[in-house]
Amino acid sequence: MQDRLEDVKAQVQAALDEAMAKLPPGELTDAMRYACIGGKRLRAFLVMESARLFGIRDHEALPVAAAVEALHAYSLVHDDLPAMDDDDLRRGLPTCHIQWSEATAILAGDALQSLAFGLLADSRSGSPEVRLTLIKAFADAVGARGMVWGQAQDIAAETAAEPLDLVAIKRLQSAKTGALIVFSATSGAILAGADLAPLSDYARNIGLAFQIQDDILDVVGDEAETGKRLNKDGEANKATFVSLLGLDGAREKARKLVRHAEAALEAYGEEAGNLRALARFIIERDA
Amino acid sequence: MQDRLEDVKAQVQAALDEAMAKLPPGELTDAMRYACIGGKRLRAFLVMESARLFGIRDHEALPVAAAVEALHAYSLVHDDLPAMDDDDLRRGLPTCHIQWSEATAILAGDALQSLAFGLLADSRSGSPEVRLTLIKAFADAVGARGMVWGQAQDIAAETAAEPLDLVAIKRLQSAKTGALIVFSATSGAILAGADLAPLSDYARNIGLAFQIQDDILDVVGDEAETGKRLNKDGEANKATFVSLLGLDGAREKARKLVRHAEAALEAYGEEAGNLRALARFIIERDA
Repeated sequence: MQDRLEDVKAQVQAALDEAMAKLPPGELTDAMRYACIGGKRLRAFLVMESARLFGIRDHEALPVAAAVEALHAYSLVHDDLPAMDDDDLRRGLPTCHIQWSEATAILAGDALQSLAFGLLADSRSGSPEVRLTLIKAFADAVGARGMVWGQAQDIAAETAAEPLDLVAIKRLQSAKTGALIVFSATSGAILAGADLAPLSDYARNIGLAFQIQDDILDVVGDEAETGKRLNKDGEANKATFVSLLGLDGAREKARKLVRHAEAALEAYGEEAGNLRALARFIIERDA
Repeated sequence: MQDRLEDVKAQVQAALDEAMAKLPPGELTDAMRYACIGGKRLRAFLVMESARLFGIRDHEALPVAAAVEALHAYSLVHDDLPAMDDDDLRRGLPTCHIQWSEATAILAGDALQSLAFGLLADSRSGSPEVRLTLIKAFADAVGARGMVWGQAQDIAAETAAEPLDLVAIKRLQSAKTGALIVFSATSGAILAGADLAPLSDYARNIGLAFQIQDDILDVVGDEAETGKRLNKDGEANKATFVSLLGLDGAREKARKLVRHAEAALEAYGEEAGNLRALARFIIERDA
């Protein structure tokens, strides 16, 4: 799985570099390129591996993988802004608005979102009908019904009178980080016109496990490893899976979700080995 | 032309209301709806009238018109942010970040961009191939090669050692406001698979005339009429068409561009009457 992850990383970086090379030189493009440096590329991996399950080749799924990572990069740049989470460290580097300026960070994020849709529309995979379906699903996953809705709830929770309960946190996270993970993991099935249910089930479970592990790392993690500021939620007195379930309870919950995720892939047999390994990796990672 | 503009306004507002009604209730959706209030809807008019030239009916072109206005609304919300132009009045109302918060304004803008792409993908007009071409052209017009590039240049110009010259301002404005105007005016031809050149020529000319008139109104306009703060460029000591050409020179230049725009439509005869009237309206407007 690690070899395949490295392979996907290299392919996606090359695709993003190629897309940025077509943009006019200058600070805006530099900031966009900077925002796309590093990252685990888990979402790209989900795209490529879900596509492979249906016989879709890497070069066909690559524009979708690059689009997902460009979109994810935009979301991090905007989330890190002073008016939002106000973070100055990301992936071990100064955040975009620290490195450049707030205005450039806002614009780079905006342009990365446009680039993501452009990559999807430009993709060579699937019939035109299927690509329109994919773009529609993407717009839903990243907009006011998905990721951005989740981020708005997260910001609202910071100033709310009462901390969120478990149901509200699950709902928030399934939108904020879950929606793009579900899109990524089901994109292969969308392109192939196949049943989305098993991959969607898998993705919902690993999405939540991913967030729980993030909450765990926020408490027990190492800033040098994760490349971002930690213990933010504790300082902000924010409800998290750890504050609600305890450290052991959160770990047990994450393990359970990963078992469910693995079970959801049963129908795909050996072919889904990498996706199963990714599910386990998500709760074993320390960054 | 005014009747048709009112008709387009009503149709676009209904389409935007319908799209927002499908979003989860809450501050984010309220802010998105707020950002879409008012406006001249010139871009929607360009979409609907360019479509009509090729026999495309209103209800077929409407999702494209709504997408263009949602995208335009996002660009205004982000342009008005404190880190950008720092405006507190827009279309006669407090700007989005004043009415809500900076975080909500950033997220509402982000979600309006996703919504715009979703509307395009969801559109019923044209073949799937043609709709993908339209989405690709839209992504180019609004991203790091188009609108956002122009806005980045505009912000950079504010802190540059020397004011921009006429060539640089034309280049900046043809990206910042021109690209979306060209997209809007050519969208009908894209959907119909027709030659884009005449409408593109028309749109480049009215786009520049529109910007010149904005610069003129910034000097001689009335804040109550325009619904935004004026004389900003003079205060910022920013180069504009008026500062470079003088008031009379700018007016003469705008009139010349409008004549060129009208001439570009010759091949379409009477059918393009509304588009010609719009070109004249652009330099006659006082808001």
